[in-house]
Amino acid sequence: MRDNLAGNFFEDFRLGQVIKHATPRTLTVGDVALYNGLFGSRFAVQSADTFAKKIGYPRAPIDDMLVFHIVFGKTVPDTSLNAIANLGYADCRFLAPVYPGDTLSAVSEVIGLRENSNRQSGVVYVRSKGFNQKGAVVLDYVRWVMVRKRSEASPAPNADVPKLPDKVDAASLSRAVPKLKAKGYDYTLAGSTRRFGDYKVGEKIDHRDGMTVEEAEHQIATRLYQNTARVHFNQFTEGRGRFGRRLIYGGHVISLARALSFNGLANAFHVSAINGGRHVAPLFAGCTVFAWSEVLDRQEIPKRKDIGALRLRTIATKDRICGDFPFKAGEEYDPAVILDLDYWALIPR
Amino acid sequence: MRDNLAGNFFEDFRLGQVIKHATPRTLTVGDVALYNGLFGSRFAVQSADTFAKKIGYPRAPIDDMLVFHIVFGKTVPDTSLNAIANLGYADCRFLAPVYPGDTLSAVSEVIGLRENSNRQSGVVYVRSKGFNQKGAVVLDYVRWVMVRKRSEASPAPNADVPKLPDKVDAASLSRAVPKLKAKGYDYTLAGSTRRFGDYKVGEKIDHRDGMTVEEAEHQIATRLYQNTARVHFNQFTEGRGRFGRRLIYGGHVISLARALSFNGLANAFHVSAINGGRHVAPLFAGCTVFAWSEVLDRQEIPKRKDIGALRLRTIATKDRICGDFPFKAGEEYDPAVILDLDYWALIPR
Amino acid sequence: MRDNLAGNFFEDFRLGQVIKHATPRTLTVGDVALYNGLFGSRFAVQSADTFAKKIGYPRAPIDDMLVFHIVFGKTVPDTSLNAIANLGYADCRFLAPVYPGDTLSAVSEVIGLRENSNRQSGVVYVRSKGFNQKGAVVLDYVRWVMVRKRSEASPAPNADVPKLPDKVDAASLSRAVPKLKAKGYDYTLAGSTRRFGDYKVGEKIDHRDGMTVEEAEHQIATRLYQNTARVHFNQFTEGRGRFGRRLIYGGHVISLARALSFNGLANAFHVSAINGGRHVAPLFAGCTVFAWSEVLDRQEIPKRKDIGALRLRTIATKDRICGDFPFKAGEEYDPAVILDLDYWALIPR
Repeated sequence: MRDNLAGNFFEDFRLGQVIKHATPRTLTVGDVALYNGLFGSRFAVQSADTFAKKIGYPRAPIDDMLVFHIVFGKTVPDTSLNAIANLGYADCRFLAPVYPGDTLSAVSEVIGLRENSNRQSGVVYVRSKGFNQKGAVVLDYVRWVMVRKRSEASPAPNADVPKLPDKVDAASLSRAVPKLKAKGYDYTLAGSTRRFGDYKVGEKIDHRDGMTVEEAEHQIATRLYQNTARVHFNQFTEGRGRFGRRLIYGGHVISLARALSFNGLANAFHVSAINGGRHVAPLFAGCTVFAWSEVLDRQEIPKRKDIGALRLRTIATKDRICGDFPFKAGEEYDPAVILDLDYWALIPR
Repeated sequence: MRDNLAGNFFEDFRLGQVIKHATPRTLTVGDVALYNGLFGSRFAVQSADTFAKKIGYPRAPIDDMLVFHIVFGKTVPDTSLNAIANLGYADCRFLAPVYPGDTLSAVSEVIGLRENSNRQSGVVYVRSKGFNQKGAVVLDYVRWVMVRKRSEASPAPNADVPKLPDKVDAASLSRAVPKLKAKGYDYTLAGSTRRFGDYKVGEKIDHRDGMTVEEAEHQIATRLYQNTARVHFNQFTEGRGRFGRRLIYGGHVISLARALSFNGLANAFHVSAINGGRHVAPLFAGCTVFAWSEVLDRQEIPKRKDIGALRLRTIATKDRICGDFPFKAGEEYDPAVILDLDYWALIPR
Repeated sequence: MRDNLAGNFFEDFRLGQVIKHATPRTLTVGDVALYNGLFGSRFAVQSADTFAKKIGYPRAPIDDMLVFHIVFGKTVPDTSLNAIANLGYADCRFLAPVYPGDTLSAVSEVIGLRENSNRQSGVVYVRSKGFNQKGAVVLDYVRWVMVRKRSEASPAPNADVPKLPDKVDAASLSRAVPKLKAKGYDYTLAGSTRRFGDYKVGEKIDHRDGMTVEEAEHQIATRLYQNTARVHFNQFTEGRGRFGRRLIYGGHVISLARALSFNGLANAFHVSAINGGRHVAPLFAGCTVFAWSEVLDRQEIPKRKDIGALRLRTIATKDRICGDFPFKAGEEYDPAVILDLDYWALIPR
């Protein structure tokens, strides 16, 4: 018998198919340090065991986006090795904290299929779940990708497009956060006195700093996640391809934007859910990433007096500062925009 | 209310002001590994738990300069975000060993202010202290930086320049080192048989090796320290600035020179104090760093028969080998010199 | 007295000489994470504590090649600082598992010497052993290097070339692997259902993916191993040298090829022995590494019903895909080949 080294093509997916992904992964303080070196995040809860313990965690939890990338990485060999484009995310929820020493694995279910009219590719919708070593779900999200067909002649499945929520319900947002000991939260050490009540819907925040990305950086990050998508690593082939160069993993931009967002959102310490995300344009090494955010909504969470939820749109750009909040002109994104991310972050009340 | 994302300007500092810096940080074996990968240090005490235990440590302590960079990084958002230049260090003392699992935080006090004659900037003197999770001071140092004024019209404070020691007194040097079990120190494993008595004042040592610095390397290092100084990370803005490129964090040069100094100073395992340091010229990616040292002084330490102190001047250069010990011609530094560091290192007797 | 900072020349070696190398090194989960970030390996046994425990390990063991690089790195300052070329490896055996927290040290014995006919250099054969903190040998291998003479006039020693096995005997291969609990091995999580009986002698496997190497990556890796060979780090000198640029440590190619070999050899989880290895051509940053393997032999291991041994030749190339298995034309290697490695890997039966 042979392994499926060529990856799955559109014809290989069936509605309802369940894929148990390979390579469980124990996360450690080593991963945390390398992630810090790559993104420089400064949220105190994830940075210091002492800070985390004082507010009710057993120790500093692992950065939410690192958890996302690890789970996402596992799904790549089975779902997106033959992807043309990563089209979107929805209904992404962080459901339990992850700590150094935990081992993550991932399972996906095909929840939608739709052939494209050109018959050369189709869209595959998968719901992926990340589990810890106890079997608890730590992450649950839907992603859809455009995948090549092996053959144009292959018959199309019945189109089946899942109905997806345009946002995660605020009532379900706090599962990965213990009840906070509010008095233990030191706003000086956290870097800001702004909390839930200090943000207004419609407020825009320029995150100010810029971060230039090097080839070695995004490669080290993406290998750390055991993500095997070839476009990120292989200059020999990509040099002859669409862009003439390696394409940076879209998740790298999300992590950069999240780290930059500390400037203005220092207490929004937990990404609780991603309502949707769009990689508007590709990022290449040598470019500098900037970001800004808009507060789209503010919601209290039932039975949680300790924390509230801010719905944020974070926009990342390349080689363009964000003091004037570049976004769209009509339907078109500003040409510098590379990421449009809609998510819920939790913040003390 | 708003956060002070723009950083402090010269007018914002007051004599005696105490600043509790943000983002406590738990250091781990992950940080140690990444620091090793970035600098390749070979001092046995920091490299091996077994070696450290045999001489009286509970385990391998964290490299002194990594401790320095972590504490320094915390001070940047509050003290030097609007700095024009980092002018100097003095009276820097390492006061307790730091181990993986320890959490560091930092507090600074403004101890001097002097407006420049052009009225566009001023010099701010701060004494910064790093604390571990038990509240013990692990590091104490003075730094002075030239900081922009928000407005030329702002009134000048009374000039107040602190009197600083030109060197740390040798009697106070050994606080971060337990009494050594001298018999446990294996000079073969340490890489050299030279100890305190084998060095003479005036001796010069070429550290021989050269290390080329890449953009990804200094960025990963500097983010690891959560140092947010913009000049290190933002090619888009720096490309239009003074040097046309990103400026490497001066501390990166210190760590490189310290790692290189193993060649000739293998048993000088602990940086106990920094008497003064000057970043003579900037370093940019692509340059190769070399270093040499001169023994400026040798001092016994009261009540410590186990270790002695070598006062060292370590000079780092860029793109110039150090076999002829390049330093100064008259008052002027050799154009290749980038660092002139004066410090005490401890070494077995 | 002075240290031998210039390294040993051919005249400095004597047959039977035993060299205890400097700088013991405690390996940690930090090293594991950084190694993962640099190579992206996906073998489940090394990736997840849970997977390792289910088959009988106390926790995930450290990647075999990381162990090799750490031990190799220690030998460099004493054996190959003045090397012209690393000529070969033989009889390399991994003899005990290494776990995070273990401390490695190394000792070498000179087992052969032969002056070259030009009298400017000679070949030095050393048997090097890596030990853990309990004194157990974890790695044992022979390496021979061409080393410069200090002076052409120095008298030649009697030529003494050791007789080396052309392969490690299969009967001795399983010492670093506990008896596997076969039922605990989850082939889905491991990424492949192919086991010992599914491979045939003569089978060739294209590992498909390509990995472009950046200067920062190989420098970080090689410093992590405390390998001080100057050619890898010093662009200032190498820019004026043989190749005009830094030469990538040959072991970097081995680690890349090993990580790539997951595609097709996912269950071959342990490199048990290296029969021989040749760095056919140098690798430089910017090149993309590909790899393929041939099954040279299959052997059962006495008293081990749980695992079998595959003898593999893994060929790595630069900037050339391996779908047609590039190797040799007559005696000459294909110009793209950079590594020809002959080793035993263990795989469940």
